[in-house]
Amino acid sequence: MNSVIGYYSTKFGELWKMSLDDLFLAASCGVLESTKLEIGQIDAVFIGNMLGGVVDNQLLLSAHISEILEVDIPIYRLEAACASGGMAFQTANEYLKSHPESTVLVVGAEKMTDISATDITTALSTAASLDEQKVGLTFPGVYALLAQVYLNEYGYNEEHLAAVSVKNHAHGVLNDNAHFQRYVTIDNVLESPYIAYPLKVLDSSPISDGAAALILSNNKQLIKTRNSSVILASEMATDNISISKRRNLDEIYSTKKAGTEAFKKSKIIPLDVNVMEVHDCFSIAEILALEDLGFWKKGTGGGYAKEMATHIDSGNNLIVNTSGGLKAAGHPVGGTGVKQIGEVYLQLTGQAKRRQVKNTKYGLAHNVGGSGGVAIVTILGV
Amino acid sequence: MNSVIGYYSTKFGELWKMSLDDLFLAASCGVLESTKLEIGQIDAVFIGNMLGGVVDNQLLLSAHISEILEVDIPIYRLEAACASGGMAFQTANEYLKSHPESTVLVVGAEKMTDISATDITTALSTAASLDEQKVGLTFPGVYALLAQVYLNEYGYNEEHLAAVSVKNHAHGVLNDNAHFQRYVTIDNVLESPYIAYPLKVLDSSPISDGAAALILSNNKQLIKTRNSSVILASEMATDNISISKRRNLDEIYSTKKAGTEAFKKSKIIPLDVNVMEVHDCFSIAEILALEDLGFWKKGTGGGYAKEMATHIDSGNNLIVNTSGGLKAAGHPVGGTGVKQIGEVYLQLTGQAKRRQVKNTKYGLAHNVGGSGGVAIVTILGV
Repeated sequence: MNSVIGYYSTKFGELWKMSLDDLFLAASCGVLESTKLEIGQIDAVFIGNMLGGVVDNQLLLSAHISEILEVDIPIYRLEAACASGGMAFQTANEYLKSHPESTVLVVGAEKMTDISATDITTALSTAASLDEQKVGLTFPGVYALLAQVYLNEYGYNEEHLAAVSVKNHAHGVLNDNAHFQRYVTIDNVLESPYIAYPLKVLDSSPISDGAAALILSNNKQLIKTRNSSVILASEMATDNISISKRRNLDEIYSTKKAGTEAFKKSKIIPLDVNVMEVHDCFSIAEILALEDLGFWKKGTGGGYAKEMATHIDSGNNLIVNTSGGLKAAGHPVGGTGVKQIGEVYLQLTGQAKRRQVKNTKYGLAHNVGGSGGVAIVTILGV
Repeated sequence: MNSVIGYYSTKFGELWKMSLDDLFLAASCGVLESTKLEIGQIDAVFIGNMLGGVVDNQLLLSAHISEILEVDIPIYRLEAACASGGMAFQTANEYLKSHPESTVLVVGAEKMTDISATDITTALSTAASLDEQKVGLTFPGVYALLAQVYLNEYGYNEEHLAAVSVKNHAHGVLNDNAHFQRYVTIDNVLESPYIAYPLKVLDSSPISDGAAALILSNNKQLIKTRNSSVILASEMATDNISISKRRNLDEIYSTKKAGTEAFKKSKIIPLDVNVMEVHDCFSIAEILALEDLGFWKKGTGGGYAKEMATHIDSGNNLIVNTSGGLKAAGHPVGGTGVKQIGEVYLQLTGQAKRRQVKNTKYGLAHNVGGSGGVAIVTILGV
């Protein structure tokens, strides 16, 4: 059965001294070293990256990786905006299904801080519909609209959103690779400047550089001799790119569909899940994710969020975003989906150090592209 | 066994009235209609596109396609510069290997003419190494270097190169979808302006808009009731992005490796192949391809090219680039790899109309990214 047998991540943050190629190299070599594998044991590579062409003038990344890693094997580049890493993983998992006794590398990376904040915002907005781009509706704006619908519909306020960031920053303190390793309070969040009402700076994930890599294998000997976690399901669903064409604005439909399929394939139910990384690009997104994945009834998430029901010290059975999430761990877009699965893998194999959750058996990773045009839900077990 | 069961292509050329989304829609609907399939019968979509983010501000194409085709199924976007279409096809073929009784859509498209010639040249050069970009080495320059090595090494001249264009233009006349449907002579080519010595305008493929789509299936009933061609192999190999780090400059190593693997898997030899589409982005590239794929001994290709040994009226057993190739049919980069396989499919299933080659049994398609950093070789049979 396809398994994750290794994970490595660079630090996420403003990594001025590292280029996109440096990031790919660091993550790839890191995971090979930590799993004691040679590059010659890798049969194919799957790359997740969004902005190589737009920001770094680097397309044809397959050939970059060929040169960096000195291999001539198949190397696939997948792009699905912020879900590029998840799509690379999902494609690798599909590939392994028809390649017995094989081992592949999945690496996601993004270099974002070499251009101005305005330019990177414009670059990221290429994952919105052209109509949304034309009216200046960048991603904070899109998620602010979703937040307004949710708060109005279910009677919550900005404090309910703020609690998501407080929890994820608390988790980020426990992760040495996190972009931010400091606590924030509800007041800190509420007093931070608005980006797009009701979302503020501290409701939002940062612009980060970073890379993460995983080794996947179905080679029984390798699985047996490494820290391994079984891939029970990795499912993708898509939706209209335009939010004006969405079924409802209090949910992310693609998350619901991918989640339903992932639970069906993995033959577990939400109650079985102990650890989860969800796509909290903005605070509202984590609340919607927990509802859309079937953990919380629609409209109740604001309350659970304010209680910090998924905090590592909550004593509850489900802990969410132990890495710090996109909010505190950072969001190098192509790297995020890979890091999420890596974090779940660390938790399930007892390698999560200061942030280790006890008695973990099943974990889930949830990666979203754009405002929900793509979602990928992966379930791992031990 | 995985088979191609349908193909459709838009016209290639300067399509001022069509956007990137229009192109995707036209090709997707065209192939569904021609195969009498409903979109509901499609299990997944594989997109090939290079410059959506850089030229059209359109990333997250999966969500565009979801909206255009009104589906919520998995939609993968692959990018490998000029081999994006081939990579999309290759990934789709791998996917089907573990999805029995399934049917997928592969669609490649590129919108290139909405920006200036300078801007599109810069955009295309993002598929070169950063060092090559910095010194202004665009793709005509890279292939001109390869051409110089080849002509000097083996004692050929510009006439030998020119003959490739003459042949492919002659084939383009027979293809209603070709960007150029007119004959050129050796003198026309030799008298056209130099772009990068020894390559001239008429040694070079044009900047084109266009889209092409294929339906792949392993559903026995569908294969039986449609014009079908079996996919015997589709193999990818990679190489260093920098030409300064290549093994030799009189060959494309990735083509050699992918070709060797494709022949091994398909259990046929070059002599069995009747029709072939190779990646003639520049005239020299077709000569290298025929040598690297094992059809012509290294260094002999110039002579065969000048004889137009693979012209449709040559009477020989192997006819190359019946579509007109990239040179005359046009080169909308994401569409090219899909069109190449589509042309081979038409030839093998007797649907190539005025350019039909007689007694076709096996066909090959060869798609290259950049200056050879990626190559994909696909072999079809009937």
